[in-house]
Amino acid sequence: MRVSELVARSRVPLATIKYYLREGVLMPGESTSATQARYGEEHLHRLALIKALAGAGLPIHKIRLIVELIENPGENLHETIGRAIATLPPYPEGERRTDHPRARRALARLGQVYDPGYPAVAQFERALEAVENVGIPMTDERLDAYGRHIRGIAELDLALMPTESAQAAVEYAVLGTAIYEPVIAAMRRLAHQHLSAASRGADTPEKDHR
Amino acid sequence: MRVSELVARSRVPLATIKYYLREGVLMPGESTSATQARYGEEHLHRLALIKALAGAGLPIHKIRLIVELIENPGENLHETIGRAIATLPPYPEGERRTDHPRARRALARLGQVYDPGYPAVAQFERALEAVENVGIPMTDERLDAYGRHIRGIAELDLALMPTESAQAAVEYAVLGTAIYEPVIAAMRRLAHQHLSAASRGADTPEKDHR
Repeated sequence: MRVSELVARSRVPLATIKYYLREGVLMPGESTSATQARYGEEHLHRLALIKALAGAGLPIHKIRLIVELIENPGENLHETIGRAIATLPPYPEGERRTDHPRARRALARLGQVYDPGYPAVAQFERALEAVENVGIPMTDERLDAYGRHIRGIAELDLALMPTESAQAAVEYAVLGTAIYEPVIAAMRRLAHQHLSAASRGADTPEKDHR
Repeated sequence: MRVSELVARSRVPLATIKYYLREGVLMPGESTSATQARYGEEHLHRLALIKALAGAGLPIHKIRLIVELIENPGENLHETIGRAIATLPPYPEGERRTDHPRARRALARLGQVYDPGYPAVAQFERALEAVENVGIPMTDERLDAYGRHIRGIAELDLALMPTESAQAAVEYAVLGTAIYEPVIAAMRRLAHQHLSAASRGADTPEKDHR
């Protein structure tokens, strides 16, 4: 397809497509003349990826890191996926801490192995500190229940990971992490509303059929 | 305590405290002279709440709405909590849609009651559209598993809600929603890493003890 069709089908403006080409996150089309190039489905696919990552708050240099890992996933897929996920927000502000006492304690209780340098450990520590500061600390009761349910979600995520190529696996891991977090957050809010309405219904005498 | 001690203990700068007083989100202290006032534990507590909400991305007018609901929770706690949660980000961009076909279908499958005007429904719809756009759509298999586990998390959240006052319940609901979402996101990333490392370990010959 010509670039005009790529614009129409991707719904990404021409100036943005040119920017992505210059930044090296979109691969060049096949030149058909000095001023024209032909694009294919892989360009549409890549634009959807870039759009999703930009929408999740990634700056262009982080998107480039992910694109490089997708194009050259290397031998060790576990490590490549770890590096790709490590590019995702949230990005730490201020001082870099290396000890993560709350996260370390929680992960030991959950019996989980982890790489202490993995950004999610620092992210977990900051999040645990924040809940502590507002007076709703992570108790063992909550940690055990959350841990069990989140493990169940993560098991399904891994079970559904595509196996046809390393590229597909890296894309799935990055997008499945970044793009499914808002899904989970919305579902939890809706589950609260459902359970709250249901318990209120149960307390209402006219709905009590004993 | 004097305002200097409030600054020291809350770690909120004086100028910010004055701003919160002007904006009506921090209640005034007890005047002890024309230029001095005395503050108590309730001011520290309120500052922690404001700090947490601001840190979660709420603008000052949304924080004021939550403070008003905490101060006047009214008769219908379920509704008050719903209104308080509705002030939380993410805030929709662009056009407001009123039909939410993906969210409606998913919630029907989960058997959940919901208020269609509740912002989490629109948030769920946008999130479902985003995963569809990147080619990792919400399948029934995933929805059922996510739904079951997120319901389990939400049940615990409601079971741990404080019952001593409506104020405490509203604060818990707002903070527990906003501040625990990053905890859950970090835990999911760490569960992925744990499961991925564990499955890799099982595939590694030197760790195979059959």
